[in-house]
Amino acid sequence: MKLYEIAAFLGCSEIKDSIEITGMNTLRDASEGEISFLSDSKYEKELFDTKASAVILPASKIHLLPFGVVALTSDEPYMLVAILSKQFAKPVQSSTVSPVIGEGSCIYPTAHIENGATIGKNCTIMSGVYIGSEAVVGDDVILYPNVSVYRDCKIGNRVMIHAGSVIGSDGFGYAHTKLGEHVKLYQNGNVIIEDDVEIGANTTVDCAVFGSTIIKQGSKIDNLVQIGHNCIVGEYSILVSQSGLAGSTTLGRNVVMGGQSATAGHLSIAPFTTLAARSGVTKSIVTKGVYSGFPLMEHKIWLKMQAKLAKILES
Amino acid sequence: MKLYEIAAFLGCSEIKDSIEITGMNTLRDASEGEISFLSDSKYEKELFDTKASAVILPASKIHLLPFGVVALTSDEPYMLVAILSKQFAKPVQSSTVSPVIGEGSCIYPTAHIENGATIGKNCTIMSGVYIGSEAVVGDDVILYPNVSVYRDCKIGNRVMIHAGSVIGSDGFGYAHTKLGEHVKLYQNGNVIIEDDVEIGANTTVDCAVFGSTIIKQGSKIDNLVQIGHNCIVGEYSILVSQSGLAGSTTLGRNVVMGGQSATAGHLSIAPFTTLAARSGVTKSIVTKGVYSGFPLMEHKIWLKMQAKLAKILES
Amino acid sequence: MKLYEIAAFLGCSEIKDSIEITGMNTLRDASEGEISFLSDSKYEKELFDTKASAVILPASKIHLLPFGVVALTSDEPYMLVAILSKQFAKPVQSSTVSPVIGEGSCIYPTAHIENGATIGKNCTIMSGVYIGSEAVVGDDVILYPNVSVYRDCKIGNRVMIHAGSVIGSDGFGYAHTKLGEHVKLYQNGNVIIEDDVEIGANTTVDCAVFGSTIIKQGSKIDNLVQIGHNCIVGEYSILVSQSGLAGSTTLGRNVVMGGQSATAGHLSIAPFTTLAARSGVTKSIVTKGVYSGFPLMEHKIWLKMQAKLAKILES
Repeated sequence: MKLYEIAAFLGCSEIKDSIEITGMNTLRDASEGEISFLSDSKYEKELFDTKASAVILPASKIHLLPFGVVALTSDEPYMLVAILSKQFAKPVQSSTVSPVIGEGSCIYPTAHIENGATIGKNCTIMSGVYIGSEAVVGDDVILYPNVSVYRDCKIGNRVMIHAGSVIGSDGFGYAHTKLGEHVKLYQNGNVIIEDDVEIGANTTVDCAVFGSTIIKQGSKIDNLVQIGHNCIVGEYSILVSQSGLAGSTTLGRNVVMGGQSATAGHLSIAPFTTLAARSGVTKSIVTKGVYSGFPLMEHKIWLKMQAKLAKILES
Repeated sequence: MKLYEIAAFLGCSEIKDSIEITGMNTLRDASEGEISFLSDSKYEKELFDTKASAVILPASKIHLLPFGVVALTSDEPYMLVAILSKQFAKPVQSSTVSPVIGEGSCIYPTAHIENGATIGKNCTIMSGVYIGSEAVVGDDVILYPNVSVYRDCKIGNRVMIHAGSVIGSDGFGYAHTKLGEHVKLYQNGNVIIEDDVEIGANTTVDCAVFGSTIIKQGSKIDNLVQIGHNCIVGEYSILVSQSGLAGSTTLGRNVVMGGQSATAGHLSIAPFTTLAARSGVTKSIVTKGVYSGFPLMEHKIWLKMQAKLAKILES
Repeated sequence: MKLYEIAAFLGCSEIKDSIEITGMNTLRDASEGEISFLSDSKYEKELFDTKASAVILPASKIHLLPFGVVALTSDEPYMLVAILSKQFAKPVQSSTVSPVIGEGSCIYPTAHIENGATIGKNCTIMSGVYIGSEAVVGDDVILYPNVSVYRDCKIGNRVMIHAGSVIGSDGFGYAHTKLGEHVKLYQNGNVIIEDDVEIGANTTVDCAVFGSTIIKQGSKIDNLVQIGHNCIVGEYSILVSQSGLAGSTTLGRNVVMGGQSATAGHLSIAPFTTLAARSGVTKSIVTKGVYSGFPLMEHKIWLKMQAKLAKILES
């Protein structure tokens, strides 16, 4: 899509530049030929060295753009991003190349592997599994029945995913009109699951809006867990059943999340942190330790508080 | 089924009326030819103008029935309703008419569309999807892999349902014997999903016991969310991951429910209400606002309480 | 596998015994020809009368073994158990005998029934259902679309399982290396679901590590519920949506768990106990009653506490 076509589509028809725009991305990750955006001033400093060819942003921020980057100005940049994201949304099927299946792999007859997908060696892809276009599955992987892997996702070696889990479903992102309607931000990223990860049954891992949601090597995720878009789960982390990560949160390595615990979005959790069952994290955790409660506190303080509450109750 | 047959089946063999009973329904929604019931005295006032042809109710309430409505009396009307509901339960397959598929729709070969179902135009019905008998799917709908839509459900236009979600599973309703056994109340209603709704992965929406569970236009529902039977989700509402609605609760339009929040059943939540993550609602909310905590309180009061608790802890 | 082979594999090459070892089991349940282990001293008393042929245990406990039982000593017995468990893990497919389907049962064409499985009479096995090797399904069972039943699981008569639920997925068990890596404990047990159980949509029931996870007769389980490995759910229990049981917890009969409630692992809950919505159980419950909150307390005390907290807030 030519930049002037995008501009016209978004109501910025004064832009006449005919550069070909191949995709959307964040300021930090955009490369030449991509369009980016500034919708939250905390990312302002990423304007200076963005490689994007064009940026959607408020008029007041134009002076921060590097020389040669085209500005599409708007009071509601996030809404324009949502509207534009649909233009770059990839179709469910986008390849005519038959899937490649590695030696020794067993594909059940009711599994559905899209064209353009690649399956490694010695995999077991059981009944009802879906593997999307351009998805890549490593060696010695077992996908139990009715697992769904959306397009473009990458699954490492020796990964085991239990029945009914969903990898790469759309992240939950919308721009909101003044009338309270929600405009979908198409999620054009993927999920990367590294080697030796095990994922339980009926767990959901959303794809990134741009870039990747990443489950790092050796992590173990239980049943009915929710991993939001653009999360990063550090190496050897453990997420117990019914826990949840809101979008863009990063866990360091060896983080343990107890059952039904959860974090808000855009947080960072220090490596080797343990979050007790049912804990709720609303701020980043810088110092490793054992934390409990909602609001979250150090576990030993939580125990103290419970003792104090018990005393108050008796009085 | 003739009314006297029903009566005999339920142990009320004094009834000899031979009117044909075609179904069961609530007092409010029943029409001629249907049988209804009174099992909770708070619905007593609905007896006066019910259109039901017969009502199962305690003997003490017979005088409240409109003239001409047949009474089947019982000390345990809810148990009789449960027992009778099985007689009216619809079979999984009930049509010999091939499904109708609209122009431009793509049905994956392992999708299963029951006879009697209707799919609109330009839909994508992916692998492993199940669409039940008499279900109706609108235009431009995408059902991702392994979505299950039970019989009689209605899905609007431009609806998107992510992998593994279940629409129309039986609501969780039982009558209990004195010995503590549970007798299933067959759920003979459906789910209606209006236009422009998006539903995440592995979410569950139960069908109504009678009538419809309704997700209104433009609502967005995340992954692993539970919507109980007979709930109504107002227009443009947002339900974040792992939140849950118990049965018969109604959300007004533009309600936002944070992650892992939940409501009890039979509540009504004012339009434009925001429920913070993890909040638990046990009473109806009449005034819109931002609410937190469990028990629920205004968010600003919750913040105050947390500050007070912190102080108590320090002392 | 010969015992000396196992010993050599585990680095205990001094053992030369050539007895054939047919499986692994707990001290209590092991029979002749099986290997067991002591990894937690609270099970020490089960050493005395174990029927196991060999036991992996710390050197300091050898003197507690019955005469004739071979000791494989280790400082990290649980790690050896994990490593060995892979050797005894059963393959996904292990039979060449065509499945047996009872009279009057309807199997949808996209259901996948493994060899060695048995389906009773008058069952409905809907599209996308998976039934594993050696699994046994009783009479009059309905499995809704995309239900997955792993190998060896047993399902009683008149059981109803709603769409997307998973029965017998691997329990969440790992041994941990000093470097923080996780070594999978292969889960070689099964799930037993007794007669007249109903299970909702997208619920997960993990198989036992050894022995069985059991859902007893007449229990009713809602949507999105998690049942960990080796749990026992007593007769006529009710588990409301999004509740969870961590591993090895036992519910007595007629326990009610409210929505989003949960228990820790290895607990025992008295029959006829009611756990309010959102309650969190961390200790066994000996006396039946109604309990609320997290930490858990009697419901009437919880109500009192909320009143006190409200007063403190006002002051």
